[in-house]
Amino acid sequence: MINRQIVLRHRPVGVPVASDFALIESPLPECRDDHLVVRVDYLGLEPSARPRMDASSPYSVPVALGEPIPSTGVGQVIASRASGFVPGDWVFVHSGWQRYAASSASAARKIDPGRAPLPKWLSLLGLSAFTAYVGMTVLAPPRPGETVVVSAASGATGAIAGQIARLHGARAVGIVGGPEKCLYVESLGFDAGVDYKAKDFAAQLDAACPHGIDVNFENVGGDVLGAVFARMNPHGRVLLCGLISQYNAIDDARGPNLWRAVYNAIRIEGFLASRHWDRIPAFIDEALAWAEAGQLQQREHIVEGLEQAPAAFRDLLGGRHLGKAIVKLTD
Amino acid sequence: MINRQIVLRHRPVGVPVASDFALIESPLPECRDDHLVVRVDYLGLEPSARPRMDASSPYSVPVALGEPIPSTGVGQVIASRASGFVPGDWVFVHSGWQRYAASSASAARKIDPGRAPLPKWLSLLGLSAFTAYVGMTVLAPPRPGETVVVSAASGATGAIAGQIARLHGARAVGIVGGPEKCLYVESLGFDAGVDYKAKDFAAQLDAACPHGIDVNFENVGGDVLGAVFARMNPHGRVLLCGLISQYNAIDDARGPNLWRAVYNAIRIEGFLASRHWDRIPAFIDEALAWAEAGQLQQREHIVEGLEQAPAAFRDLLGGRHLGKAIVKLTD
Repeated sequence: MINRQIVLRHRPVGVPVASDFALIESPLPECRDDHLVVRVDYLGLEPSARPRMDASSPYSVPVALGEPIPSTGVGQVIASRASGFVPGDWVFVHSGWQRYAASSASAARKIDPGRAPLPKWLSLLGLSAFTAYVGMTVLAPPRPGETVVVSAASGATGAIAGQIARLHGARAVGIVGGPEKCLYVESLGFDAGVDYKAKDFAAQLDAACPHGIDVNFENVGGDVLGAVFARMNPHGRVLLCGLISQYNAIDDARGPNLWRAVYNAIRIEGFLASRHWDRIPAFIDEALAWAEAGQLQQREHIVEGLEQAPAAFRDLLGGRHLGKAIVKLTD
Repeated sequence: MINRQIVLRHRPVGVPVASDFALIESPLPECRDDHLVVRVDYLGLEPSARPRMDASSPYSVPVALGEPIPSTGVGQVIASRASGFVPGDWVFVHSGWQRYAASSASAARKIDPGRAPLPKWLSLLGLSAFTAYVGMTVLAPPRPGETVVVSAASGATGAIAGQIARLHGARAVGIVGGPEKCLYVESLGFDAGVDYKAKDFAAQLDAACPHGIDVNFENVGGDVLGAVFARMNPHGRVLLCGLISQYNAIDDARGPNLWRAVYNAIRIEGFLASRHWDRIPAFIDEALAWAEAGQLQQREHIVEGLEQAPAAFRDLLGGRHLGKAIVKLTD
């Protein structure tokens, strides 16, 4: 058996291009002590892989040249030297873009395909959705009647953040690019979708938030964050989940004028879902229960074949699809 | 008896000039129900009066043209129609720049000149010091061994913030303008003073913070905040107390790049001491105890005569003195 991987060939300058990646074949990874080897059936793509392609990325560990691009993945254990895992177990791992991945036992988590089909463990129950859950239930749970604005609301994290805000009894407003995505987030139950590409973006945002903004779940940054921040109410909370508008040019961006944060006593909080792994079991139970009750949905955008990952990733950064970007792998 | 007041004549453009103010004589204020009238013996000047001179100030209520400039003050009740206050009582009030001030009973607080001389109720025990106390004990108390950086550290708030950080067992670094102020904050017990006007400011800051920065008590904003933010550690906390570098031109300023807040899970929190009045009694007790133990000092910069207030205020905004700016009033 051989492994197939997509590795980083060049560090991207701005938007990654096809030649920044290389599809290579390699031997199957060794199974070291306390590790397992997994056949990955689905990859989940995350925008945070982009900043990690920069040489000096402070966001988690930078990807080395020749290494697979980071991602989540689900699949089946084919070899184990870790107690608690045996071949045949289904697991969630931080696989990277490859068909066979080694993982430490501590970074792997068993999943039950009897509770939900495999791709759902990357979408409804995956890292992006969990990130939304951490923000909206642990760090800044909105109170009933408050207004929550979510940017990149048609994406895998934003869509869940807005729906959980609604479950808290809050008004959920989603900022998206284009009228089609407005309709999409409204179909998910958001009270309003607002198109940041529209000429009347500011007026749309005012209309959608007649009582100002109490909580901002921020995935975008830049001018979108600026528009939201300028409407934050006293005691508002800004959750900085990601700043996708900056990922292709991290260094140039400035944040909003913080004077408003002083006089309105606003809290701005960056966070990483990885600091809250202990919440995963509760999240899985709640997300499944909400989904069964028809209160939580996550769309999947599935492409087939490892070689599709780079293009799907560029589409993800460019906001060219809805929901969670997933790559189905086959031999 | 007549009252003397310094009122806002013109809204300042940039740095306030003498002609923006007018010294006027007026009748003594009436004593309305639930109010008292106070003969103010000392005024405490606060930088936050500057943004309130702008027509559209969102920071507390803007000062109307013809109204006294906001400030704190201590003095003696000369008339009372409020239960709990009688003529002769010594009180702390939000007096404004005037010799006689009316105050609602709810906004007045009795003080005991037997516990500390009058000016100390504006300096060591006043609003600026209380603001530092709220930040360093309620909102972001540093842990032993952490590094706390305070900007405008030679001012009435910064000096106290750094000393309280030391009392928590933290390393306190003060950012100030000029070598003299560095020596001053070091004389207060700061581990290091750093001169933001020096060419080697960045190197000074690096040397003073060999383990990065865990807590930032921020009074300045702009490039000073930028330099500190670029050194914030994972799980760092930025307390936004004021942004004095912006007060003469609020609209133009942008905050630091927030990407660091995401990957280091940093919290940035604006706050107003006025939301924490219930902590005043504990603060007074603790501050006096610390002062008696030689662990907390607050210098006073006292000028005499109401007519000196505008110049003292400009010096305050320009950082041209140490400690709390106080105006002694006499008839």
